[in-house]
Amino acid sequence: MKVAILGIGLMGGSLAASLRGGSFASSITGYDLDPKVRERGMQLDLLDATAASPAQAAHGADLVVLASPVGSMAGLLTDITDALGAATIVTDLGSTKANVVDAARRALGPAFARFVPAHPIAGGERSGLEGAEPDLFEGRTVVITPESETRADAIERVEQLWRSCGAKIVTMDAARHDRLLASVSHLPHVLAFALVAQIADQPDAQAKLSIAGAGFRDFTRIAASSPALWTDIAMANRDAIGQELRGLIALLQQVDRALGAGDADTLQALFERASHTRRQLGGSHSGP
Amino acid sequence: MKVAILGIGLMGGSLAASLRGGSFASSITGYDLDPKVRERGMQLDLLDATAASPAQAAHGADLVVLASPVGSMAGLLTDITDALGAATIVTDLGSTKANVVDAARRALGPAFARFVPAHPIAGGERSGLEGAEPDLFEGRTVVITPESETRADAIERVEQLWRSCGAKIVTMDAARHDRLLASVSHLPHVLAFALVAQIADQPDAQAKLSIAGAGFRDFTRIAASSPALWTDIAMANRDAIGQELRGLIALLQQVDRALGAGDADTLQALFERASHTRRQLGGSHSGP
Repeated sequence: MKVAILGIGLMGGSLAASLRGGSFASSITGYDLDPKVRERGMQLDLLDATAASPAQAAHGADLVVLASPVGSMAGLLTDITDALGAATIVTDLGSTKANVVDAARRALGPAFARFVPAHPIAGGERSGLEGAEPDLFEGRTVVITPESETRADAIERVEQLWRSCGAKIVTMDAARHDRLLASVSHLPHVLAFALVAQIADQPDAQAKLSIAGAGFRDFTRIAASSPALWTDIAMANRDAIGQELRGLIALLQQVDRALGAGDADTLQALFERASHTRRQLGGSHSGP
Repeated sequence: MKVAILGIGLMGGSLAASLRGGSFASSITGYDLDPKVRERGMQLDLLDATAASPAQAAHGADLVVLASPVGSMAGLLTDITDALGAATIVTDLGSTKANVVDAARRALGPAFARFVPAHPIAGGERSGLEGAEPDLFEGRTVVITPESETRADAIERVEQLWRSCGAKIVTMDAARHDRLLASVSHLPHVLAFALVAQIADQPDAQAKLSIAGAGFRDFTRIAASSPALWTDIAMANRDAIGQELRGLIALLQQVDRALGAGDADTLQALFERASHTRRQLGGSHSGP
């Protein structure tokens, strides 16, 4: 199967690297906005060919994978529509789904039936092609969010793609995906950015950072994620993130009242509910 | 030097294990509220002797180390006062300092001049003697917060203790310690507990946890810390934590407004301030 990957960063590059080790892809063509990145993809032997435009990459492909930040998906979809073959399947790696589905529905016309929205839950603080690795998706979950129009054979093919990378598939609708991810991914990132920014803004930031312990380093690791990428994600899923955020603010105000009142019982009950959750996560997740 | 350690958990046990490898301690006597833990400390060859009470442990010691949760320090200090020799030095490992200093001043009388408040910034999610390890303090920072009465020779001795464990010493006053730690340790923990509890409280918690990525796992790791220990810390430093928390709530409300208004620029500016901070932390810290 001829695969075209649009966006050769951490995610697109890792997908290419993983496909290199299997038989799913007969050839991989790569496009990236940055010509140097395209060249680097060739140097690293992740690509068979590069394309000078998204449309050129999509032309002749059996499967087109959109691996760019979610904010750029709408433009890419418009760029490739006329270049798609009658049976070409299109999929994406975006961290939000409802907005990508909307953009695809608007751009693709009848080809929307062969668009399979997908989100591999992998990545982390690294970004860019240099962080790419063939086992990034090994054991990870890929959420697929088909619409009622989505063709079963297209879904099956995208599932094959991800199984060939060692990932497991979960299917749900786009709105549910966005709500769940707002909770367990988008809000935690926003929170880590906010906590670290708050400290960075203070006059004694250096003194604080110099005695930071392991807990804070976890926050800075999360907050080291790409600001541009996360601005895109936050904008694309802002309703769901806002709702989760307001819930958390209310809980934090409750914590502030408990601190003010010296109410240790309320705090301990809260801390215990959180502490138990670690055990529920248990062995169901791999990775660091 | 005869050392007595009161509280043989992660911190006290690791201190004993580290002292075992050096020449600072000629003998180590351990006390723990739980007799089974005392026995276990003997089995693991971390202790030369156990004591049946804090006073018995302190009797004849050159250096008494309080390694119990901060909430229990006041009681311990009262228990040991009459057992202290005329030259016995007392120190602690508490995560908050102003409240421990107050308790020591009240309990120790003239011996308060030989009390050296200290806080080794080490630990993490593990707790209990079974997590203890000899290199827990290697390369870590120990903050010492002497009062005007504190004798220089007592400070020097406690600095020797920590240098023998591979730690580096930073000196500041107790109020400043508590403010800095509220920012970079206590608030991050409270925040992680709150975020994880918020998700745990929701009806679709299981679905959310099942697709959680690496960022959220960092939060659950922090929130897996001992609820009792952190309730103690939060109560002991509640003014400073409350102040930091209110600052963060205001920032989160600003984020909520930016999300509502679709104001990507405000978000990206915030995310970038945070992202730069990771680099400032740079190589100045060891450990995971």
